[in-house]
Amino acid sequence: MHTLEATYHIASSPEQIEARAEALAIEQSIEMPPSAVRQPKILREVLAQVASIQEVETGLFRVTLRFASPTTAFETAGLLNVLFGNCALQAEVELVELKLPPELLSAFAGPRFGISGLRRLTGVQSRPLTCTALKPQGLSPAQLAELAQTFAKGGIDIVKDDHGLTNQAYAPFAERVPLVQKAIAEANARTGGHTLYAPMLTGGPKTLLERLSIAKQAGVRVVLVAPMLLGLPAFEELVAELEMAVLAHPAFAGQRIAPPLMLGRLFRLLGADATIFPNHGGRFAYSRETCLELAEAARAPWAHIRPALPVPAGGMTVERVEEMVSLYGRDTMLLIGGNLLAAGDRLLERTQAFVQKVAASAGRTNG
Amino acid sequence: MHTLEATYHIASSPEQIEARAEALAIEQSIEMPPSAVRQPKILREVLAQVASIQEVETGLFRVTLRFASPTTAFETAGLLNVLFGNCALQAEVELVELKLPPELLSAFAGPRFGISGLRRLTGVQSRPLTCTALKPQGLSPAQLAELAQTFAKGGIDIVKDDHGLTNQAYAPFAERVPLVQKAIAEANARTGGHTLYAPMLTGGPKTLLERLSIAKQAGVRVVLVAPMLLGLPAFEELVAELEMAVLAHPAFAGQRIAPPLMLGRLFRLLGADATIFPNHGGRFAYSRETCLELAEAARAPWAHIRPALPVPAGGMTVERVEEMVSLYGRDTMLLIGGNLLAAGDRLLERTQAFVQKVAASAGRTNG
Repeated sequence: MHTLEATYHIASSPEQIEARAEALAIEQSIEMPPSAVRQPKILREVLAQVASIQEVETGLFRVTLRFASPTTAFETAGLLNVLFGNCALQAEVELVELKLPPELLSAFAGPRFGISGLRRLTGVQSRPLTCTALKPQGLSPAQLAELAQTFAKGGIDIVKDDHGLTNQAYAPFAERVPLVQKAIAEANARTGGHTLYAPMLTGGPKTLLERLSIAKQAGVRVVLVAPMLLGLPAFEELVAELEMAVLAHPAFAGQRIAPPLMLGRLFRLLGADATIFPNHGGRFAYSRETCLELAEAARAPWAHIRPALPVPAGGMTVERVEEMVSLYGRDTMLLIGGNLLAAGDRLLERTQAFVQKVAASAGRTNG
Repeated sequence: MHTLEATYHIASSPEQIEARAEALAIEQSIEMPPSAVRQPKILREVLAQVASIQEVETGLFRVTLRFASPTTAFETAGLLNVLFGNCALQAEVELVELKLPPELLSAFAGPRFGISGLRRLTGVQSRPLTCTALKPQGLSPAQLAELAQTFAKGGIDIVKDDHGLTNQAYAPFAERVPLVQKAIAEANARTGGHTLYAPMLTGGPKTLLERLSIAKQAGVRVVLVAPMLLGLPAFEELVAELEMAVLAHPAFAGQRIAPPLMLGRLFRLLGADATIFPNHGGRFAYSRETCLELAEAARAPWAHIRPALPVPAGGMTVERVEEMVSLYGRDTMLLIGGNLLAAGDRLLERTQAFVQKVAASAGRTNG
């Protein structure tokens, strides 16, 4: 079947749901009254179909629509338009699931590194990976480099920029990135470690290319990108030419698209090798179930699309390492930022404790 | 003051709102516990401040935060990160207002044409403008060109692609755009009119440049762009080099950002000359008040940022022309799509009726 299936949650009364579902099918495909369409072929081949309607709870329905794949033009913007273009403006509609037919799926390459590529880059074979963030905003490149060096000495696998670090005057990209990269390389040389630095890459296409070239020249091999800040078509095109691994950050990803679909499957489809998301019990309200679904969406087998590494984050602590490893298993990267920094003068020790806990927990996990 | 002010609606209990507002200020600036920040200067100069908290209704508060402008890096991605990066993932937070200090505002050029530029391009001096859409999806380039020619003969000012038309195999951009542009030019030559064609421009940066060059070569002078589908930094950069007028389409703009701010001020700030939005009483649920606020946000004086043309749309009919003109005034573009197409064989007549109604209504309006 050449059909793309998209599933929505729609808030509606039982009396109106059939008409509401039909209206959504029209909105997302031909966007005009079917009675005004003069070509029967378009009604047969382009107009989306309501495949099923199920009540989820009182006033909420699960509606699956079938779209003709060619309406997506087999490209990112076209796919997003079909899935959530106009209905992004309809507050009663949430996009929750997606089923891509083979000919559409084959238009997307997915992660270029994936979990195995990130393991190769970091030299970590069987345990979860560790990650931390350079912050706060306002530090100078030299201060950030010093922090990064301590993290690298402590054995962190990936040290990323705070996503808020773009190109502020107090830490310009062109100055910050080579300095931090160098500080980490020095630590690696001393410890024999393989810590990687992931700078935050933002901007319109031109700015992005300039920053990318600075990063490449500095020897950077992983970048942090917020796909929704960049624009998803720009993200997909960037990854295709990047030759670096990509950590996806969820900043600005506030559409009414279920997090497992948005941060898990869509970011992965478009090329994220790892996807950062707010773990339950931190500063964000995702439930444990949503987090597990998201991790599953990032890692589950999916045709030729490589698995991406789930990265639970957002107010995590060293104290929670064992619980997180037992929840997410080995193919995970734990991201702890502020809780390490809160150690002050004992930053190196807290970092080492994090790294050791992750290594130890992994021995007890088969996941 | 070098402060950027952003106002949010936050759902919270009265007991928790102070802590919640403070947490938001931290999340959107330093993103770590202030107690763990070792540089007093960062707490003074980078940490955002809660400026005010007001109860809007039971359980909902209006919270204004003050940010240091330099944290935005004076660029689009940085600004979005500060305003709505992480809190995009917090369902209880909506971004509703924005106040940019002069040094930040001056980093953005706004619309290059604006209302007066669009009037110059279309040769329409004092009445509202008219717009329609080529649809449905599934028509061939020849069929779309025929439709476009009829609309041009009927005197429409701007004929835009349906936003769903990207580069589908049944109407590839490279074939569709020159053909439609030519059909409209022929009609203009016969009628002495100035109808413009606005093709839908999408894709990652490379694809975008290829399509843009096709459009330029065909003589296109206005494009339709969905800023959120493109990515806002890519949109801003595109406009800076475009030398064409830009109609912004709201597809995929489903963030929890109040529509007057998102489709009105933000799209305008980043360069939209006109902004399409769902009018009240159509297929979308925006209230009359929201629509008026949005139109005001698009047009109100704002330092050097030119006014943008509000374009109410989404299930509008020829019957509503007078009401819409009296609501929005002259500096408006009315967009009617499906309701014209529903006329079938009488498409030319219905189009002419639309154009004449707009011209006649304007005589009775001072707005």
